[in-house]
Amino acid sequence: MPNTVKNILFIMFDQLRWDYLGCTGHPTLKTPHLDRLASKGMRFTNAYVQSPICGSSRMSFYTGRYVQSHGAQRNNFPLKVGEVTLGDHLRAAGMDAFLIGKTHMEADAEGLERLGIPPDSVIGARLSECGFDVVLRDDGLWTEGPDGPYDTRVSPYNTYLRSKGYPAENGWSENANAVALENGEVTSGWFMKYINRPANVAEPDSETPWLTGQAIDFLDQPGRDDRPWLCHLSYIKPHWPYVVPAPYNEMFGPEDVVPPVRSEDEKNDPHPVFAAYMETLVARSFSRQEVREKAIPSYMALIKQADDQMGRLFTYLEEAGRMENTMIVVTSDHGDYLGDHWLGEKNFFHDCSVKIPLIIYDPRPEADATRGQSCDALVEAIDLTATFIECAGKEVPDHIVEGRSLCPLLHGEAPGDWREVVISEMDYSTTQMAKSLSMPHKDARLFMVFDGRWKLVHAEGGLPPLLFDLHDDPDELKDLGRDPAYESERRRMYDHLHAWSRRLSQRTAISDAKLDAMQGKYPRQGVLLGLYDGSEVQEENLCKVPAVPARQDTLD
Amino acid sequence: MPNTVKNILFIMFDQLRWDYLGCTGHPTLKTPHLDRLASKGMRFTNAYVQSPICGSSRMSFYTGRYVQSHGAQRNNFPLKVGEVTLGDHLRAAGMDAFLIGKTHMEADAEGLERLGIPPDSVIGARLSECGFDVVLRDDGLWTEGPDGPYDTRVSPYNTYLRSKGYPAENGWSENANAVALENGEVTSGWFMKYINRPANVAEPDSETPWLTGQAIDFLDQPGRDDRPWLCHLSYIKPHWPYVVPAPYNEMFGPEDVVPPVRSEDEKNDPHPVFAAYMETLVARSFSRQEVREKAIPSYMALIKQADDQMGRLFTYLEEAGRMENTMIVVTSDHGDYLGDHWLGEKNFFHDCSVKIPLIIYDPRPEADATRGQSCDALVEAIDLTATFIECAGKEVPDHIVEGRSLCPLLHGEAPGDWREVVISEMDYSTTQMAKSLSMPHKDARLFMVFDGRWKLVHAEGGLPPLLFDLHDDPDELKDLGRDPAYESERRRMYDHLHAWSRRLSQRTAISDAKLDAMQGKYPRQGVLLGLYDGSEVQEENLCKVPAVPARQDTLD
Repeated sequence: MPNTVKNILFIMFDQLRWDYLGCTGHPTLKTPHLDRLASKGMRFTNAYVQSPICGSSRMSFYTGRYVQSHGAQRNNFPLKVGEVTLGDHLRAAGMDAFLIGKTHMEADAEGLERLGIPPDSVIGARLSECGFDVVLRDDGLWTEGPDGPYDTRVSPYNTYLRSKGYPAENGWSENANAVALENGEVTSGWFMKYINRPANVAEPDSETPWLTGQAIDFLDQPGRDDRPWLCHLSYIKPHWPYVVPAPYNEMFGPEDVVPPVRSEDEKNDPHPVFAAYMETLVARSFSRQEVREKAIPSYMALIKQADDQMGRLFTYLEEAGRMENTMIVVTSDHGDYLGDHWLGEKNFFHDCSVKIPLIIYDPRPEADATRGQSCDALVEAIDLTATFIECAGKEVPDHIVEGRSLCPLLHGEAPGDWREVVISEMDYSTTQMAKSLSMPHKDARLFMVFDGRWKLVHAEGGLPPLLFDLHDDPDELKDLGRDPAYESERRRMYDHLHAWSRRLSQRTAISDAKLDAMQGKYPRQGVLLGLYDGSEVQEENLCKVPAVPARQDTLD
Repeated sequence: MPNTVKNILFIMFDQLRWDYLGCTGHPTLKTPHLDRLASKGMRFTNAYVQSPICGSSRMSFYTGRYVQSHGAQRNNFPLKVGEVTLGDHLRAAGMDAFLIGKTHMEADAEGLERLGIPPDSVIGARLSECGFDVVLRDDGLWTEGPDGPYDTRVSPYNTYLRSKGYPAENGWSENANAVALENGEVTSGWFMKYINRPANVAEPDSETPWLTGQAIDFLDQPGRDDRPWLCHLSYIKPHWPYVVPAPYNEMFGPEDVVPPVRSEDEKNDPHPVFAAYMETLVARSFSRQEVREKAIPSYMALIKQADDQMGRLFTYLEEAGRMENTMIVVTSDHGDYLGDHWLGEKNFFHDCSVKIPLIIYDPRPEADATRGQSCDALVEAIDLTATFIECAGKEVPDHIVEGRSLCPLLHGEAPGDWREVVISEMDYSTTQMAKSLSMPHKDARLFMVFDGRWKLVHAEGGLPPLLFDLHDDPDELKDLGRDPAYESERRRMYDHLHAWSRRLSQRTAISDAKLDAMQGKYPRQGVLLGLYDGSEVQEENLCKVPAVPARQDTLD
């Protein structure tokens, strides 16, 4: 096993597309700070999330387990109380695990109650926060409607804004995610028509700089390095509402927007789930060029701001001498359609949604040989938990964690038995799509399996699959799922899916090492089934003969 | 929903073959008391366990979930701490759940510690005892060898024997499961050569009458019916060691033993796992006629004794007026090869191993029309948890419980959407079979899928499947798993297996009703993604417009 890593800074952006970075080839968006990190580390070009939606994707990141294994199938579905988290694994290895920002974790309140665990005990709090010790938890969605708020917590960000003199009770809504119109009025950031106007907040007080400041404060605390730590710095942006403060709001315009990846052909007899998705409001909205020309410049500006904040953070780390002992990971929980394929949001399996940026800077000398390289191995979000456990100096408990450590790849090794496919899942049971398809909850599920070329999407509920050939059709415009010519490819991909679906995922309470110890143990504990006269027992003293006399009543 | 049932007596025998009862057609073994129960209730002729081995099968009985779902893959693999048990469900419905006898439950000690649950708290004790409140826990295997005891608990049975004046520290081993030879010496019950000699114990003190007495004492306690209860009366016998006290030991002889179900053809190019099983000591032993002629009469005698004890128990219930308000279930956790197919023990999927007897007496008038009938629907052990929950008056929480209530069948209804296949699993990772096949732990797994005619056994690890046609080959002597003529049957059965393997089994922390409530909820909590100018919002006041003025710095 390689040397351990002292500290890990695990940075996640929300809804950041893999191809909206300079180093991944965006033509008009430059991200020099993230590019610099990539030049010092390794960039993974085939990294996929286990579900293209915040909550489920993150529960996979934070447990190292597939969605079908941890069961938090969709946003706000609780992570069941028995699941072991990254924090549990790291603490067992002597490393703390802190959270600054978003997790989208929903606590299993029923489970906690059933097990008698007070939610405000140390263990209860960790179970409620996906295993992290919370420095700051902010999921960045402080909306309110006729039925009340989306998130019933107290917003640390709103508290911060008030401390800075903002008068609003909900500054997230009235300042950071509202825009100032030219007439001096303010309107909601939900109205994309106006989102190229500046956010109604001073730039240093907007969400991304605020969280960066919180992270620097945390890192700068006296005694911070007394114990090894992982800090999950989890940003809220560039996730919608696509509102950005001045001067960023003016940095990009319609001329910087790349054309949508879509074709009229996609609307011709589309797969039923794809069709239902295209009918949703967000998809129809992002199919309009005027929406794209408003939303995408804002989205790009949010990324630009994020990159500048990375510059601020990396400069701090360099000056504080932390680059020598801190692994830095930058990734995202999923992408954003932005009008590609006539869709908005994520929730489906085209690369713009399910593929993520992933940059890992490993400070260890073992990684020197790969600095600045990219790696095209098939990587899954669940691999990070495994990587971090190994970095903390523990063997990956592969009876629990389904991901694989990326350390060999970071260190220039090419494991011969690397995975052949990545898996991603989508539960759309609570969506408009399920409603319009009249799909029962349990059948409103999709599975993606991708082998680097072929991408199969299986749909439950008796629907046909989708199939894309990313070699001949890298833009995924041609669904071959019902084309008779591709039956053998579909079958091969289904074989992969089914080998995966039969996997052992719940034997989490006993390790392989313990199984080894159990093998052949029973006879040595006196369980001697199959003997006829004892001559079958080679080992002396294995069979214990009773020492008592026969009872008279048995001899009568 | 039908009326509730006041009390449930859930009787399980261990290793009782489905076809070793009078009412299931055994030619030489008569079981009038169990037959009488069958005549008052319903007998299920196609009931299958979810794993033909004690611990895993029972964890499925006690959770209502498949082995792949609960993860207790084999004996002494812990049931992970988050699993919801029958006891949890029943208590939530106002019914207590008591245990008298065996569960083969292994507590998830690591999980309890991780969650900070003291094992001796009420919740910790229930988690350690598979959800039951323990009247008496005795797994009936109090052996000891050079490495110490198999079971480190204190044996209630040994305590009982000592209270009756038996001098041995371990009366289970020295009396109840030892035999008295004619010369006055005593030998171990493991030596099958001698097991037609009487057990070294007085019949009323042997395990089956002892547990029956405990059950009657429990039922007779003052105030017992203050609250509804389920009592799991879980016998140890006729599980090996096949030792029975006088006079039962003399009731059956070689002339009562039915011929083995096997053919020389089965040894011709057998499936690798089947071949490895045939090589084990217990299989070689039970393939010998002299072993069968010793073991089977004892096994039959243990069942005869059990039936007599059922007579004692049912008489008590009748005299106590309990037949009017007590559902009585009699079943087994799996069968016993007894030399059929050249095998001993269970651990594989021929009917003699994986099919179980199941008799349900339902006191409710709704069941009057079906009394004495048999039912050939495909039934799984996991159905009992669902049945009991419904009997207790609660809807079956089918996001947790994978079995289905048998109440409709008991009440003469024929649900149109009943299951098409039953599933059973086997993890042989810690066995000699895995060792001789050099099979990695995770690949040492088998899945059975049976549709009432075709039985497919899938083996992980790159091995071929087995296939039996129980219509043309009811004795399962001809493995068609590699016969090219049956490719379409295999594919059809694999489709069933894979539909099952893709099932939703871990979304246990949120019910379907809660999902219903979530549908379309976000906009009413202020999440309004996809708006361009607000004209898309039909509902008035859905979109909250900020009330604050624009900040001057945003307007400069």
